[in-house]
Amino acid sequence: MNSRSSSISFPAPRLQQRPSFTARLSAATIEQGDAPAAPGAAEHQIDEEIEEIKRYEDFTTIDWVQDAAKEQLRRKVRRKENAGFFERGGHVGWRYRLWESYEAAQGWIVVTLIGAAIGVNAAFLNIITEWLSDVKLGYCKTAFYLNESFCCWGEDNGCDDWHRWSSLPPINYVLYIMFATIFALTSASLVRSFAPYAAGSGISEIKCIIAGFVMKGFLGFWTLVIKSVALPLAIASGLSVGKEGPSVHYAVCTGNVISRLFEKYKRNASKTREILSACAAAGVAVAFGSPIGGVLFSLEEMSSYFPLKTMWRSYFCALVATAVLAAMNPFRTGQLVMFQVHYDRSWHFFEVVFYIIIGIFGGLYGAFVIKWNLRAQAFRKKYLTKYAILEATLLATGTAIVCYPNMFLRIDMTESMEILFLECEGSEDYQGLCDRENRWKMVISLTLATILRVFLVIISYGCKVPAGIFVPSMAIGASFGRTVGILVQALHEAYPNSIFFSACQPDVPCITPGTYAFLGAGAALSGIMHITVSVVVIMFELTGALTYILPTMIVVGVTKAVSELFGKGGIADRMIWFNGFPFLDNKEDHTFGVPVSQVMTSDVVALPTTGLSMKNLEQLLREDKYQGFPIVEDRTSKILVGYIGRTELRYAIDRVKRDRSISPTALCYFTPSATINPSAPTTPATPATTFDGMASSSVDFSRFIDPTPVTAHPRLPLETVMELFRKIGPRVILIEYHGKLSGLVTIKDCLKYQFKVEASENPRDDRHIIESQERLWGVLKKSAIWVSDKVHHVSRGRIRISGSHEDLVSSPPRGVGPTSYMMDGTEDVDDGVELEDR
Amino acid sequence: MNSRSSSISFPAPRLQQRPSFTARLSAATIEQGDAPAAPGAAEHQIDEEIEEIKRYEDFTTIDWVQDAAKEQLRRKVRRKENAGFFERGGHVGWRYRLWESYEAAQGWIVVTLIGAAIGVNAAFLNIITEWLSDVKLGYCKTAFYLNESFCCWGEDNGCDDWHRWSSLPPINYVLYIMFATIFALTSASLVRSFAPYAAGSGISEIKCIIAGFVMKGFLGFWTLVIKSVALPLAIASGLSVGKEGPSVHYAVCTGNVISRLFEKYKRNASKTREILSACAAAGVAVAFGSPIGGVLFSLEEMSSYFPLKTMWRSYFCALVATAVLAAMNPFRTGQLVMFQVHYDRSWHFFEVVFYIIIGIFGGLYGAFVIKWNLRAQAFRKKYLTKYAILEATLLATGTAIVCYPNMFLRIDMTESMEILFLECEGSEDYQGLCDRENRWKMVISLTLATILRVFLVIISYGCKVPAGIFVPSMAIGASFGRTVGILVQALHEAYPNSIFFSACQPDVPCITPGTYAFLGAGAALSGIMHITVSVVVIMFELTGALTYILPTMIVVGVTKAVSELFGKGGIADRMIWFNGFPFLDNKEDHTFGVPVSQVMTSDVVALPTTGLSMKNLEQLLREDKYQGFPIVEDRTSKILVGYIGRTELRYAIDRVKRDRSISPTALCYFTPSATINPSAPTTPATPATTFDGMASSSVDFSRFIDPTPVTAHPRLPLETVMELFRKIGPRVILIEYHGKLSGLVTIKDCLKYQFKVEASENPRDDRHIIESQERLWGVLKKSAIWVSDKVHHVSRGRIRISGSHEDLVSSPPRGVGPTSYMMDGTEDVDDGVELEDR
Repeated sequence: MNSRSSSISFPAPRLQQRPSFTARLSAATIEQGDAPAAPGAAEHQIDEEIEEIKRYEDFTTIDWVQDAAKEQLRRKVRRKENAGFFERGGHVGWRYRLWESYEAAQGWIVVTLIGAAIGVNAAFLNIITEWLSDVKLGYCKTAFYLNESFCCWGEDNGCDDWHRWSSLPPINYVLYIMFATIFALTSASLVRSFAPYAAGSGISEIKCIIAGFVMKGFLGFWTLVIKSVALPLAIASGLSVGKEGPSVHYAVCTGNVISRLFEKYKRNASKTREILSACAAAGVAVAFGSPIGGVLFSLEEMSSYFPLKTMWRSYFCALVATAVLAAMNPFRTGQLVMFQVHYDRSWHFFEVVFYIIIGIFGGLYGAFVIKWNLRAQAFRKKYLTKYAILEATLLATGTAIVCYPNMFLRIDMTESMEILFLECEGSEDYQGLCDRENRWKMVISLTLATILRVFLVIISYGCKVPAGIFVPSMAIGASFGRTVGILVQALHEAYPNSIFFSACQPDVPCITPGTYAFLGAGAALSGIMHITVSVVVIMFELTGALTYILPTMIVVGVTKAVSELFGKGGIADRMIWFNGFPFLDNKEDHTFGVPVSQVMTSDVVALPTTGLSMKNLEQLLREDKYQGFPIVEDRTSKILVGYIGRTELRYAIDRVKRDRSISPTALCYFTPSATINPSAPTTPATPATTFDGMASSSVDFSRFIDPTPVTAHPRLPLETVMELFRKIGPRVILIEYHGKLSGLVTIKDCLKYQFKVEASENPRDDRHIIESQERLWGVLKKSAIWVSDKVHHVSRGRIRISGSHEDLVSSPPRGVGPTSYMMDGTEDVDDGVELEDR
Repeated sequence: MNSRSSSISFPAPRLQQRPSFTARLSAATIEQGDAPAAPGAAEHQIDEEIEEIKRYEDFTTIDWVQDAAKEQLRRKVRRKENAGFFERGGHVGWRYRLWESYEAAQGWIVVTLIGAAIGVNAAFLNIITEWLSDVKLGYCKTAFYLNESFCCWGEDNGCDDWHRWSSLPPINYVLYIMFATIFALTSASLVRSFAPYAAGSGISEIKCIIAGFVMKGFLGFWTLVIKSVALPLAIASGLSVGKEGPSVHYAVCTGNVISRLFEKYKRNASKTREILSACAAAGVAVAFGSPIGGVLFSLEEMSSYFPLKTMWRSYFCALVATAVLAAMNPFRTGQLVMFQVHYDRSWHFFEVVFYIIIGIFGGLYGAFVIKWNLRAQAFRKKYLTKYAILEATLLATGTAIVCYPNMFLRIDMTESMEILFLECEGSEDYQGLCDRENRWKMVISLTLATILRVFLVIISYGCKVPAGIFVPSMAIGASFGRTVGILVQALHEAYPNSIFFSACQPDVPCITPGTYAFLGAGAALSGIMHITVSVVVIMFELTGALTYILPTMIVVGVTKAVSELFGKGGIADRMIWFNGFPFLDNKEDHTFGVPVSQVMTSDVVALPTTGLSMKNLEQLLREDKYQGFPIVEDRTSKILVGYIGRTELRYAIDRVKRDRSISPTALCYFTPSATINPSAPTTPATPATTFDGMASSSVDFSRFIDPTPVTAHPRLPLETVMELFRKIGPRVILIEYHGKLSGLVTIKDCLKYQFKVEASENPRDDRHIIESQERLWGVLKKSAIWVSDKVHHVSRGRIRISGSHEDLVSSPPRGVGPTSYMMDGTEDVDDGVELEDR
C-alpha cells in the first residue's frame, strides 16, 4: 500500500496553535504585489510546482482540458519571456530563432533518442533470447556464447559444431527441464524483488496510462531494467509466453524515462502521452520487425485518441527504432525478424472455403482463451499472489516436461512458426515436415501441439514474469493452420480431378500448407487481440507475402466477425475491465437512453466564493476525499463560477502557510481571477479591487481556480457525456442547469452505471465458478503438502520448499484485500481507491 | 444558382389575410392529444420529415450531436415498437430476433453491395482506360477492342499483331494528337453538360462532406455516371491527370447512391458519413490495388473523425471491392494493378544519402506544385470558367504535342512508372533503358520528362475533366528517382573502389536505379498529399518490396519534414482553404490565446420562450438568415433554455398552418418539453399543464426544440472550442455565462478569426500576382483572337471557334460573382452563402 500513501500526505494541521489575529499581509496581496513585477515568473513557478506534485499522484487521471489550456498559456508566456530575453542581449535575430527551432525540434530529438534506445535494447534482447533458448538444447563447441544458427552459420539443418548436451536423450530431457526451471525462477525472482510492475504483458495498463491514468512506477527506470533482463529469461524458460507485449512495455518505459529528462515533457502530461503512443508503436515495430504494423497497432489498440500528429510521431519513432535494429543486424541476415518467408505460389479462389474455416477458428480461439484466461487470472489473484515465484517456476517445469516430447513445442515459438510457414520448396525441411509419408504423423503432432499450447497459454499468461500473448497465439494459429493445410493437401491428392480443385494446374503443387499456417497465425492474433488492420500489416511485413494480402484480409475479417459475436473487446480490454481501471472503451457503442442527471452525483460539496474560513476549508480537505470542488457564488443560489482541484487547493494552502501564519478564521475567496483572459467582454467586472481592503484577514485563491470547467446540461444524454469524456478528456464534468450547479459526473460514475446496466442485462451466477475454484485450490494445496512432505522426508529435513506447508495450511483463501502481498497494480486498484477518485 | 434556391423556399406569407381570431384548437393541444395515443408514430413521422428536408439543404453542415441523439432515440423507439409488434403476433422469439439481426447486419449488407459495385466499376474502368490509351498509338489486328498487352499476350516487347496506325512517324504523331483532342473534348463536354461536379478530383469536397458539410448533387447518381464515363477519356487523352482522386469520388458516389436505398442510411447523416469513409477507402483500394493502403488513406486524409468502427467498415468495404476486382481480373495477370515489381537485391546503408536527396525532392516538389497550381486555379477561376471545354481540349492537344516526342511522356503514366521501376534483371527492358551505353541519353530524357510533367501537372490539375494528381505526381517522382539512380550507378561504376561504395560486393550490380524510381514515386506522392503511413503502405502493396520498407519510410519521412517547413497541409487541404469550405483542419495546432468571447457573435437574435406572436416569428424567419435561434426565458434575463434550428422552426410553422389556420397574433411557446427525458430530477417542473388553458390562441413548439444545445463558457479558450467543434461536431456552440446567453459561435466564426490571425501574421501582397494574371490573360486573349481570325479567314468564315473573339473581347475580367457560368460548387461557395451559415 506504499504506492497509495505516497500521494501528497499532509499532516493534520493543528488549527488552534496560532491564535494571533494580528493583521499580516495576506497571500492575496503578496501575490498581487508580485504579479505585476514578474507576471510570468511567479505564475510559472506555481504552475510548475503543481505539475510536479500532480505528476506523482498515483491512480488518478489526467485532466486533458486543463493540461492543454495550461500548455498553451505556458507556451505563450515562455515565448514572450524568451523573446524579451534575447532581445535584451542585442542579438534579436538568430539566437531567438535558434532557441525557437530547438523548441520546435525538441519533440523530434526526444523521439529519435527514444527510438534509438528501443532499437538497441531490442537487438540485445533478440540475441540474448535466442542464445538462452538454444542453450537448453545444447552448446556451440567453437564458442559457448553462440546460438545454434550462428554456430552453424551457412548450413541449413544443423551442423557438427553444435553439440547436444548429451548423446543420451533422457539426460537431454532432464537438462532441458532444469534449464527451463532455472530461467523461470530467476526471472520471477527478479520481477518480484525489484519491479513487480514488470510482470505480465503491460498492454492493458499502458492503454489506461495513455488514456490519462496515472500509475506511479509502472513506467519507471527499474521496471525498464527488470523487464529487459527478465524477459529473455522468461521466453527462454519455454513458458508459453511471447515477447511482444513486454516489448511494448519496455519501449514505453524507455520513452517515459528519456522524455522525463526534457523539460517540455517533464510537466506536460498530455504531451508525454503522445510520446508514449509513439513508443508503443516502436515496441511492436521492433518486436515484429514491422514498423508500419507497429504504428497501426498503436493506433488501433493502444491509443484512445490518435491525432495525425501522434501518428507521425509514431511513424518516426518506429522508423528510428527499426532502422537502428536493422543497423545492429542481430540475426546477421539483414532481416529484422527471425524469419521471413516468401511464397512463390499464388492462391486459388476455391481455397477461400478453408480460409473461412481458419478465420472461424481464430475467433473461437480468441473467445475461448479470453474466457478461461480471465478465470485463471481470477484464481491466481485470489489464491496465488503469495506464491508468484513458485507458480512461475512450477509452470516452467511443467511446460518443459510436457513440451519436450513434441517436436513443435520443444523449440522456440518463433522458430516453430518459421518452420510451419515453410513453403516446402527445394531443400528446406524440418524433421520431415514436408514429406508426404509423414503426413498423418504430422497432423497428429500438430493437433496435439495446438491443444497443449492453448491450455498452456491459458494458465501461463498472467503469471508473474514478463509475458506476452501475441506470439503464443500466433504459434497456436500456425499449428492449427498447418494442420488444415496438410489435410487440404491430402484431400487434393486424393481427389485431384474433382471439380472443386479444377483451378489447380496439373503436375504443380496446388496447395501450400505453409500459407495456411501463415493465415492461421494471423487469425489467432486477430482473435485474441481483436485487431484487424494491424494484424494484416504485421503479417504482411513479417513475410512480404504480397499475393496473400487478400486471403489474410478475408481470414482476419471472418475472425473479427466471429469475435464480435462473443466478446466485448480483446484480451487487453477484458483485462482492463477485470482490473477495474477507469477506462472508457471507445470501441463500444452504448445506448442507455438516460440523461446524465441519472448518473451524476447530486450532493456535491461545493465551495462558496466567499464566506468559507480557513478552518472550514481545512476540515473539508481532511474529511472529504474528492479530488476537487466546484465553486459556487453561494451555497443557496449555487451559481457555478469555477472549479478547483484538490491538489491545487492543498498546494495553495500550504504555500500560504509557508509564507506566513494564517488565522483559522481568515476568509477564503474563490472568485475566479479575470487576469488570465483580460478580454471577456460579457463577464461582469469582478470586484477584485475591493479585496485589498480586507486583505488583512483573507486569503485569495483566485489564481488556482479553473474558471471554465467543462459543464453539461442535466438532460444531456449520457452517451454524449461519455463522448465528451472520451474525446475532450476532462477529469470531471460539472452539471449546470441555468447557471446553477446541480451535480457532478466522473468517468467512474459513467462506468459504474454501465456496469450496472450490463449486469442487469446479463445476470451472472458466479457461485459454481467460485466453488470449482475452491475445489481446485484444495487439490493444489493437498498436492503441495504431499510434495513438500516427500521432499522434506527424502532430504531428511535439509530441503524445504519455499512456501512451505505451514504457510499453505495457515493462509486462508481470501479475497484480494488491502493487505495483498504483491504491489502489482491490480490489487491496489481493486480495493476501491479508484472508485472514490475524481 | 439553382442549387441554392432549392433549399426550402417558402413563399412570403401574407399575414393580414386571415384576421379571424376565432379560437381553434392549437397545434399544441392537437399534438398533445395525439402524443399519448401513439407516442412513437407521431414523433417518428415528424423526425423523418425534418430529416428528409435537412438532407436536401445545400451548403449547410450536419449537427453531429443532434444527429447522434436522434438516432439513439429512434433506435430505442423502434426497438420497442418492433418488439411490441412481433410479440403481438404470438411468435415472440425468432421473428423478432431475425428482424434484430437484419437491423444489425444491414450495415454490412450495404457495405458489401457498395464494395462489389465499386470493384465492378473499377474493373471496367481499368479495361476501358487501357484500351483507350493504347488506341492513340495503334490498333490490334486480331480484334480492335484489345489493347496492346492483351493483343500481344505472352510476349514481352510488343508483337506483330499490334499495329501502329501508320508506318510514317509524322502521321502517327498527328493521329496521336487528334485522338487526345477528341478524348478531352468528349470528356469535358460530358462533364459540362451533365454533371459539373464530376470535374476535378473531388477529394477536397469529399473531405468536407465527410466532415459534415452538405453539397447537394456532389455525390449524386449523375455525377457517378459521368465521372465513370469521362474518367477513362480524360486519362486516355494524355492529360497529366490521374485516376486515383476521381476513383475516390466515384466510389463515394456509389456508396451514397446505394446507401440511400436503405432506410437506415436515408435519414441518418452521420451513419452515412461512416459509409462514405469506407467508400473512400475502397476507392483508393481499387485504384492502387492496395486495400490496406486505402483504409489508411481514408484514415489519414479523408476522415476528420475515424472511430475504430469506421476503420473496420472501411477494411471490409476495401476488402470486398478488391476481392471483386481480383475476381474480375481485368489485367488477366492475377494482379490487381497494372504493374507489380519485385526487387531481388537489397539496399545498402550508404544509399541513405541518396534517399534523403529523393525525400527532399519530394517535399520541394509538393510545395512548388501546390503553390503554382493554386495560382493556376485562381487564374482559371477568374478568367476561364466560361471556356472550360475549350481549355481542357487545348490542354490535351498541347500535352499531346509536347509529350509525344519524349519516350517516357508518350505512354500512359502507369506504364511509364512500370518501366521506370524495372530492376533490369534478365531480359526486361524498354527502349534501351537498362543499357549502359544509353545512360546519358536516358538522363537527359528523364530530366526533360520530369520538368515538363511538373509544368503540365500545374496547369492541368483542376481543369474541368475528372482529374487526379496522385499518379502524375508519382510519375514525376519516378522519373526524377530513376535519374538519380542512373547517376548513382554511374558514380559507382566510375569509382567502384571508393570507401563510400565499400559495402558493394564486387561483380554484382550494386545500385538498382529502379528502386530509386520507386522511392521517388513515393516521395512525390507524399509531398503532394502530405500523407505518410498510407504512402508507405500503398507503395508496399504496389510492389511487395518488403526489403524496401525502411528506405520508403526514410524517404517519406524526409519528404514530410521538408513539406512541414513549407506548407499548411497537402493539396487537398489547400484546395479546401482556397474554396473557403467550412472545414476545421485537424492537422494543425493553433495557439491563439484568446477566449471564445472574442470570436463569438454577441448580438444574437434569440427567441423568448413566450410572448412572441406568429407574426413576429414569421417576420424573423424572413428577415434573418441565420440557421437557428437560441431560446431564452425572456429577452432581458437571457436565461438560455434551448435552441431551435431554422429548418425545424420552418417545418413546425408549415405543419401547424397546414393543419389549420393560425391567427398572426397567436402566441408561440418555446418551452422545452420534458417528455423526452422524464427523469431530470433537478429541473424544476415546467408548467406544461397551464398551456392547455390558453391553447386557443397559442402554438407550442416545444417538441422541435433541442433542450440541451452544446454550450461553453465565454472565457473558454478558443482552441478548446475548436476542439469541441472538431471532436463533438455541433453546428453551433452557444456561449452561456451563469446560465445567460451571451453569444453564439460557429465553425465559420472560428475559421474567420483564424484567417484573420494568419493574414495579420503573414501579410501578403497579391498585387503583382494579379497584375501578372492580367498580363497573361491579355496574351491569351490576343493569341486566341489571332487564331480565331486566322481560322475564320482560312475557312472563309465557315469555322468559328467556340468562345469566339467577340466574346473574348467583351467579357470583362471579373471576379467570381453570383453570375458565374458553371455550377461547380466552388463558385457557389465563394460568394458568401457559407459565411452566413450557422
